[in-house]
Amino acid sequence: MPAFAHDLRLGALKAAYTSGSLSPRQLIGELRERAAALNPEFNLFIHLLSQAELEPYLAALDAKSPAELPLYGVPFAIKDNIDLAGIPTTAACPAFAYIPGESASVVQQLIALGAVPLGKTNLDQFATGLNGTRSPYGECRNSVHPDYPSGGSSAGSALTVALGVASFALGTDTAGSGRVPAALNNLIGLKASKGLISTAGVVPACRTLDCVTYLTTTALEASQLLALTAKLDARDEYSRANPLWNDASAFGKPRAGFRFGVPAQLEFLGCPESPALFAQAIEQLKALGGEAVEIDFAPFLEAARLLYEGPWVAERYSVAGKLIEEQPDAVLPVIKAVLEKAPAVSGVDTFRAQYRLQALKAICDRIIADLDCVLTPAYPRPVTLDELHAEPVKRNSDLGYYTNFMNMLDYAAVAVPAGFMQNGLPWGVTLFGRAFTDQYLLGLADALQRQHGLPLSGERTLESPAPATLARHDSARVVVCGAHLDGLQLNWQLRQRGGRLLEATQSSPDYRLYALAGGPVQRPGMVRVAEGGAAIAVEVWELPSSELGSFLTGIPAPLGLGKVQLADGSWETGFICEGYGLAGASDITAFGGWRAWLASR
Amino acid sequence: MPAFAHDLRLGALKAAYTSGSLSPRQLIGELRERAAALNPEFNLFIHLLSQAELEPYLAALDAKSPAELPLYGVPFAIKDNIDLAGIPTTAACPAFAYIPGESASVVQQLIALGAVPLGKTNLDQFATGLNGTRSPYGECRNSVHPDYPSGGSSAGSALTVALGVASFALGTDTAGSGRVPAALNNLIGLKASKGLISTAGVVPACRTLDCVTYLTTTALEASQLLALTAKLDARDEYSRANPLWNDASAFGKPRAGFRFGVPAQLEFLGCPESPALFAQAIEQLKALGGEAVEIDFAPFLEAARLLYEGPWVAERYSVAGKLIEEQPDAVLPVIKAVLEKAPAVSGVDTFRAQYRLQALKAICDRIIADLDCVLTPAYPRPVTLDELHAEPVKRNSDLGYYTNFMNMLDYAAVAVPAGFMQNGLPWGVTLFGRAFTDQYLLGLADALQRQHGLPLSGERTLESPAPATLARHDSARVVVCGAHLDGLQLNWQLRQRGGRLLEATQSSPDYRLYALAGGPVQRPGMVRVAEGGAAIAVEVWELPSSELGSFLTGIPAPLGLGKVQLADGSWETGFICEGYGLAGASDITAFGGWRAWLASR
Repeated sequence: MPAFAHDLRLGALKAAYTSGSLSPRQLIGELRERAAALNPEFNLFIHLLSQAELEPYLAALDAKSPAELPLYGVPFAIKDNIDLAGIPTTAACPAFAYIPGESASVVQQLIALGAVPLGKTNLDQFATGLNGTRSPYGECRNSVHPDYPSGGSSAGSALTVALGVASFALGTDTAGSGRVPAALNNLIGLKASKGLISTAGVVPACRTLDCVTYLTTTALEASQLLALTAKLDARDEYSRANPLWNDASAFGKPRAGFRFGVPAQLEFLGCPESPALFAQAIEQLKALGGEAVEIDFAPFLEAARLLYEGPWVAERYSVAGKLIEEQPDAVLPVIKAVLEKAPAVSGVDTFRAQYRLQALKAICDRIIADLDCVLTPAYPRPVTLDELHAEPVKRNSDLGYYTNFMNMLDYAAVAVPAGFMQNGLPWGVTLFGRAFTDQYLLGLADALQRQHGLPLSGERTLESPAPATLARHDSARVVVCGAHLDGLQLNWQLRQRGGRLLEATQSSPDYRLYALAGGPVQRPGMVRVAEGGAAIAVEVWELPSSELGSFLTGIPAPLGLGKVQLADGSWETGFICEGYGLAGASDITAFGGWRAWLASR
Repeated sequence: MPAFAHDLRLGALKAAYTSGSLSPRQLIGELRERAAALNPEFNLFIHLLSQAELEPYLAALDAKSPAELPLYGVPFAIKDNIDLAGIPTTAACPAFAYIPGESASVVQQLIALGAVPLGKTNLDQFATGLNGTRSPYGECRNSVHPDYPSGGSSAGSALTVALGVASFALGTDTAGSGRVPAALNNLIGLKASKGLISTAGVVPACRTLDCVTYLTTTALEASQLLALTAKLDARDEYSRANPLWNDASAFGKPRAGFRFGVPAQLEFLGCPESPALFAQAIEQLKALGGEAVEIDFAPFLEAARLLYEGPWVAERYSVAGKLIEEQPDAVLPVIKAVLEKAPAVSGVDTFRAQYRLQALKAICDRIIADLDCVLTPAYPRPVTLDELHAEPVKRNSDLGYYTNFMNMLDYAAVAVPAGFMQNGLPWGVTLFGRAFTDQYLLGLADALQRQHGLPLSGERTLESPAPATLARHDSARVVVCGAHLDGLQLNWQLRQRGGRLLEATQSSPDYRLYALAGGPVQRPGMVRVAEGGAAIAVEVWELPSSELGSFLTGIPAPLGLGKVQLADGSWETGFICEGYGLAGASDITAFGGWRAWLASR
């Protein structure tokens, strides 16, 4: 394989373009040649754009500068079940092919941001597979080890990033199709929460489950791409607004004391190396300040089994069924074998399975309710190309052991590189959590990537330290100092909103505490002062972000919520008091806190 | 019909018990006799509890006082598809009957709160019907007019309240089964948002759509019952926590300027009186301060048609299908006719219909996105018993014209009495809105009931004025005075959260305005003072409540959100500033506002 001439990461490319040392035309031209040279061995592209087909995208950049477009001149690849206007969409089935008049919404967004599409990538036919060999356009071998598959179904997309042809690639992920090839090729595979990235213009696999995936070298890039393109889309009825308002600023370092689940029932299917690699990943999350919590994994696995043993195959059949009935030879035998039981599925079966899934989701939601995320292997063991040829369905299923349940249960997930087998094959973990915790998970993935210090594709490593932004989550913290303290009169307002006590601590030594006049519930005012302050006893509580607004609107004047500095110097959202409210108040700073003052009376 | 001896409304009963003028034993005994006397004509009870069966519930109250239990001694009736421990549940199908070992979750909750179950009420078999005649336990005629049905399927439950036998009754509502009998009997029918009231222990009709309904005389009582029993239930996998934190305090007067949708395509199926009654209801909502907005109703109606023309009948079949196959004569012919197409529904059909429903929901959600609620008739026209006998399916469908779509689209709804036909038959409207706006809708329903001044069952009328609580909604208001003002630097933080400008106004004349030191974005501090204040130009913005928390956490010290007084004397959530933050600040009060100061520089 020819050496990597350029660092294609978003930040590096922007620097190169801004300095004038590189132009989009030059880079895209080189990458086309590189892709053409790699294709005979790796079969990564079904359609590589010609110079003429690339020209409109390059011409659009001529009038722009790198400062004007966030993704100016960034080369990306598109899985061939996602529409690019004017280029055939095949879903790896020539008989199914059509030429779309407009691009998928996410492709439109990326191009408008300055990114340049290089071509349409190879996949398991109809995105049905996790290995990358189920394509009439040739098998996709692994980017590192020739005896192994790339993983699929976003097989070619993963290869474009791993082999230095594109900065990032679009995949799709219904049952693991983005995360499995990411893990097998040393990449980040972001399966964002369902509906965050529009699927308008994507050939459905299971319409109720499908997600678009970003395959990148680093978690930081996936975070940036998600922040740029997560948007409610009127073209996609499954599109969802993010109720937690994660944006790029939400990405960052995990806070100490985060809790991550680890399956009690781990399965490595006999792999001799995965257990130690996974144990190492657990230790590295602990080293980042996390606490491992063992969780029952049985209901997650039952949800996974529903996906292929239940009626959801009828969703796939609703896309490819007509073609199978009319031209049976147009579809690969292994795909037909997967779909053949679909016509026998009844409506009653379908609803019953949906009820069971809902019951499992309620159980799984409770299991992860007080966790920040869950850590699993990305795949239990790798499978070789020979093993896949011998048992194409069973060995494919092996790869999905830790991925199949994710969209069924509506969780956000990111596959993160986490080591290499002795033979050089990349290995990875998955971080997953509640819907819309994507940016939190990416912040943790970034920290894990830096902690691991693994070589990225192109043998580069990740610079330290991480960007100095604050982690955010679907939880918000509130510093309380009075009637909301644990066990006091208004504490129920926190508890009934799902609040939990994180720590009892003190403010920084910059405050004075007052007992305010009025009632009926007596309340303190904590007031920051430039001089003569003291440390005041406070508690830090955690609430679901979505509950914080109603907590705020219930607070009467002269109190409010602003920023309070804690003993460790950090600033958190917490109670503040307007100056006018101190009329008639008693200064009780000397007691050191509200409880001590109450006790003294 | 014997005269109403007691005012059974929650407040009146509590007063009677507290004064000692009435005891639960006395009342329940009288009501048993009343029910037994009414049953031959109205067929309202399938099983009326015996004195022995009532005794444990009455005995439990002996050791308690009215002050201890919110529903002390309140008599209620239970639709016979909802379990009461030890009493048969029939779903109006004797061959289906079973004796449950424990009560439905909501029944357990109500009994624990002090309420006393009187019996199990008649219904359309398997809750499949909207008229109340489809029962082997006899037809339920209307409470007012003998030529008309009670409406169903919660037929007997509505009658217990309308005929003065129970304070409230539990119904169920999948397609309108709670709202239609409410409207036909001069009652409130609250079909709360799906999942707010547990359905554990309820015989499913369509498991994905079923709701428990409260049938009451007044909206205030429905609000109180909802506040007492809306709770996440681990027994019900479809149970949902209320993300908007509506509790009893959320009920109250609508604010002026609320916007209500009215269907552009109104349908009264030839009824000569409904159009004028509906026009009157529109005028009364306007008189309460509302603005009528015409909306396209076609997608709502398409969603309604999916319910019976699509695969959702397979849900009903999953409950009753086995019985139909094994004992065809055990099920009423009209129910069999409705369910007979279910076995032919395929899984592929089911998913395709779910996709279409999702697309319709996206359309309908956009239509109501900037409305506070929608107003429709509760039913387009009444149907007589003779009409129902002649065309049992078609005339039944007529009653569901405005109700069938509601649970398909996941909206909250309440049927509200709104007049009488010339023949005395009650007529009603429905208020509906986004999920979890239940208490807002009930506040509006209460205002409408008082505005109408209609006689309640028992010929009583509703006292005025309404309780002096504040309306809440899934929107929150924020008063801004600086960089968040319309068009200024940080205004995007409001707009990107779905914020909209409600009004530009002034604060009360109690504030001083400062330009704070520091940057990069220059920000003001608005500080309330005891003397020497002025009115400051501010804007009131509206945000989804769930977004307010993330808006708050992004605000840096010394600013925060507290309570700000406006020119009209009201207090709203808005920007406040801590006293210490004024170091180095310039007093710019004389400019009257941030914009004026910016313009002066």
